[in-house]
Amino acid sequence: MPYETIQINTPPPYLTLNRSEKLPTVLIIAGSDCSGGAGIEADLKTITAHRCYAETCITAVTVQTPVSVFDVHNIPKSIISGILDNNLRDMKCDVIKTGMLTYDAIISLNEKLEKLDELPKLVIDPVLVATSGSTLTKDELVGLMKEKITPWATLLTPNIPECFKLIGEERNIRNLDDVFQLAKQVMSACSCSNLLVKGGHIPWDSSDKKYITDVLLLGKEKKFIVFKGHYVDTANTHGTGCSLASSIASNLARGYSLPQAVYGGIEYVQNAVAIGCDVTKDHVRINGPINHIYAVEIPLEKMIADECFEADHILDKYSMKLANNIGIGKPLEKPSFVKYLQEHPRVKPHWQSYIKHDFVKKIADGTLEPSKFQFFVEQDYSYLIDYARVHCIAASKMPSFEDMEKELTIVGGVKNEMQHHRERLQNHFNVTESEYFDNISRSTALKNYSRYFNDVAKRGNWQELVTALTPCLMGYGHALYTFEDSISTKNPLYLDWLSVYSSEWYRKAMEDGEILMNHVLQTYPSENVEALVQIYADVCELETKFWDSALNFSPENN
Amino acid sequence: MPYETIQINTPPPYLTLNRSEKLPTVLIIAGSDCSGGAGIEADLKTITAHRCYAETCITAVTVQTPVSVFDVHNIPKSIISGILDNNLRDMKCDVIKTGMLTYDAIISLNEKLEKLDELPKLVIDPVLVATSGSTLTKDELVGLMKEKITPWATLLTPNIPECFKLIGEERNIRNLDDVFQLAKQVMSACSCSNLLVKGGHIPWDSSDKKYITDVLLLGKEKKFIVFKGHYVDTANTHGTGCSLASSIASNLARGYSLPQAVYGGIEYVQNAVAIGCDVTKDHVRINGPINHIYAVEIPLEKMIADECFEADHILDKYSMKLANNIGIGKPLEKPSFVKYLQEHPRVKPHWQSYIKHDFVKKIADGTLEPSKFQFFVEQDYSYLIDYARVHCIAASKMPSFEDMEKELTIVGGVKNEMQHHRERLQNHFNVTESEYFDNISRSTALKNYSRYFNDVAKRGNWQELVTALTPCLMGYGHALYTFEDSISTKNPLYLDWLSVYSSEWYRKAMEDGEILMNHVLQTYPSENVEALVQIYADVCELETKFWDSALNFSPENN
Repeated sequence: MPYETIQINTPPPYLTLNRSEKLPTVLIIAGSDCSGGAGIEADLKTITAHRCYAETCITAVTVQTPVSVFDVHNIPKSIISGILDNNLRDMKCDVIKTGMLTYDAIISLNEKLEKLDELPKLVIDPVLVATSGSTLTKDELVGLMKEKITPWATLLTPNIPECFKLIGEERNIRNLDDVFQLAKQVMSACSCSNLLVKGGHIPWDSSDKKYITDVLLLGKEKKFIVFKGHYVDTANTHGTGCSLASSIASNLARGYSLPQAVYGGIEYVQNAVAIGCDVTKDHVRINGPINHIYAVEIPLEKMIADECFEADHILDKYSMKLANNIGIGKPLEKPSFVKYLQEHPRVKPHWQSYIKHDFVKKIADGTLEPSKFQFFVEQDYSYLIDYARVHCIAASKMPSFEDMEKELTIVGGVKNEMQHHRERLQNHFNVTESEYFDNISRSTALKNYSRYFNDVAKRGNWQELVTALTPCLMGYGHALYTFEDSISTKNPLYLDWLSVYSSEWYRKAMEDGEILMNHVLQTYPSENVEALVQIYADVCELETKFWDSALNFSPENN
Repeated sequence: MPYETIQINTPPPYLTLNRSEKLPTVLIIAGSDCSGGAGIEADLKTITAHRCYAETCITAVTVQTPVSVFDVHNIPKSIISGILDNNLRDMKCDVIKTGMLTYDAIISLNEKLEKLDELPKLVIDPVLVATSGSTLTKDELVGLMKEKITPWATLLTPNIPECFKLIGEERNIRNLDDVFQLAKQVMSACSCSNLLVKGGHIPWDSSDKKYITDVLLLGKEKKFIVFKGHYVDTANTHGTGCSLASSIASNLARGYSLPQAVYGGIEYVQNAVAIGCDVTKDHVRINGPINHIYAVEIPLEKMIADECFEADHILDKYSMKLANNIGIGKPLEKPSFVKYLQEHPRVKPHWQSYIKHDFVKKIADGTLEPSKFQFFVEQDYSYLIDYARVHCIAASKMPSFEDMEKELTIVGGVKNEMQHHRERLQNHFNVTESEYFDNISRSTALKNYSRYFNDVAKRGNWQELVTALTPCLMGYGHALYTFEDSISTKNPLYLDWLSVYSSEWYRKAMEDGEILMNHVLQTYPSENVEALVQIYADVCELETKFWDSALNFSPENN
């Protein structure tokens, strides 16, 4: 029979600098959810996604899917006890995280903890009511939990219904003060060191914007921290409780402080909920799993991107199917992709509010207060540094050396713009110290915008990055088209600024940008073009908000 | 009680473009290893690290650590059967991966597969002998496996001892042909579609370099593929079998072909073994777990790097402890960090063989064959494109705009060097077509070097990246110091090349590089300086090999 030989790459050399990596360790004590969305499976996924090492003690194997819990098999005490003994003897354990505990698990864990010389941190998720509303453990266990387990807790993480069970009565929760009262009562009933009351089930807020409110009570400091998370409208909520506790446990194992660990955990779960995943059959419409691995990169695709020098041919030979970036872009139906984008129903409202912005109108007619202009120049100066960095990343991703150079030319242009801004501040606003420029306080609008750039730069390909960078170039020019006939200001500062974006060279730069965007369309998978539309719309909105923030600036509020 | 409010970030906007992500799904049927290194835990970690969605059917809960297997509890048939029914009804399932199967699991799985309309792919890891050598399942099960399970297998993945069990006799395995014979016999005994014979346990090879040889037998194509992996000397081998099968299952679920999936799996496990992890107590010295998560990034650190605009203060306030990049560099003990590196015992041999290379000597005395020089110029031309890309990434990571600009100046210089190379090839080697430059065939030495750059660029910080970029700058200049008194060539091509690296501007560039490297030392955590030493040594070695490849070039072999 014929055979061929394929040479495996050596491990990435820089990576192996970190040999025998000291991974933080988390021991999970919980039930198994065979459908993978909750229980020990969710814990393992979460801890793995946090680059920590998970060990397990399975208390029960449940037969369940998002539809229902169908059956439960408890693991015998001898096995649970044996696992705890052997794991705690042979394996490192920075943090213990518990989920669904059976009677045997409660008794065994308490026995072991009594005997340990050095206690790991304990994150106790009191799984008394699952997200689906069904009771997995019996009410009788609550008393035992409070006696044997919760007093060991570094952190106890009940949701509101679990709080009611822990104190033995229901309450009316109308506002934050009610949660504070509840938290104090639970802490006292459970003798835990710290408590996180999860508001996931009750998104109450007076404003029309919905928030998820989680309240951390620090026992020693006698202090509350309120975490305001963003409410995500989704059916993917199966396993949020387990995942939050495991994320917090992982962050603690990594050495973060408790407030930091909780903060990171809430954000992780919120992201996992917002992204979600489609892994159930079509008839399952509720309670789908969250996406634990939204930030995990795919090893084989990384290897391919790494230029697999010893086995390139395997990529072509066995009909490589890449999950991303397959397909050839569609031919241009419109003469200009930029014009297509700007007319697209999802982009147009943002594009129009951007290029017809009052901020530019008031510069043109000279009615803008100079302090607002100064604020804008400062923010824009700070923005340009990020903008240059992102162009460097774009350059590194460009398909040819020529494209790379074009990107870098833009960085040169940015330097000129920054120099202009320095002169504006020095000549018109009496800025004399050079440290001034290093100490500009960045507005929320600017940070939002920068974060978007960084996100696309890290995760996106060159086409997506170019799409994100283009609205800035196009919008300033188009705003000048909008207002060039109504320029009546006599302010030389304003006239100078206006002249930049109506200049010959700027119009030329816009033409080049239009050509580049056509190239983007031609090389981008046609089935994904909506992603580019979304990016263009998002950035137009961020540009609008950037000018909003300048227009709304007042020196008194800052 | 006092309280403060912390606002959680919205999810990264670019990331959420991918809402309700269609994650590939893998159902694992296997036993649990509570210590987390093997079994369903290793499977869950591997599948998660591959950004796939794992579902489980736990066949048995074992009490084990790397030290031994202490106890086993089999899960009852009603639970196993219930899990398979409900998972296959409610959850998607692209691939099934099996590990340790009990009698009940074998019977249940076969029953379900008989009834399925649409069969998922099956990767069957016949766990008959665990890595530690102890027998987990009884010999009687082997016959049942071959009757009920292996005929369903898209891929069966036995190691050599498992092959013996499957065919019922031991063999002498001395060479590849013996493995080929064994594979054919196992395939026939097991009626599987494809077979991977894992050589992990027997690293045989005639050369002095050790390889791990895995042999894939494609049943339909009647063809062998031999994968030559690198042998890693380590005690971290617990769970390699489970992890390889799960990695292959994940790659198949992602849509890769079988040879690609196997190739990716072997490389993944090899990397995980090479990096390893330190998670056992000190008395456990063997059979430690592999590092499943070597490529996973840490969510909370990503959030921090994202500039957490709504909650910056939590970072400072609660005494942020970052795992990386803490600590202030030590003051310079030596006047020059570059000189320190070049004299360092781990760098010196590579540095010396680099700057005293015969390739340069032969240019200086004019004895180098022109075809070798042409080869070098072509390879260097191709190298320079990568070098420029990496400088772009370095620029994006530099701490200040001024530093960023300095990096970009270098890209400008690279353009000049490339232009020089084009002229050399055009004027001295009759290259006329401009496509010539796009079609240079990249040597292994070049690919190794580029891959190293890419690896540091992706994972490293700016100091590490600058350290990787510096030997190229320094070495060419120092090579000229070495040979400048022995220049006797009359060849204008060689004289021109030599003059570049002894020029005034090049010496100035070296001085700037030396200053920059001192800055690197002063800002880098002093406890990690060994990492910079290693990078400098590695790159000096890569440079040496780059010249080796030119010196060893002969037109007949290419």
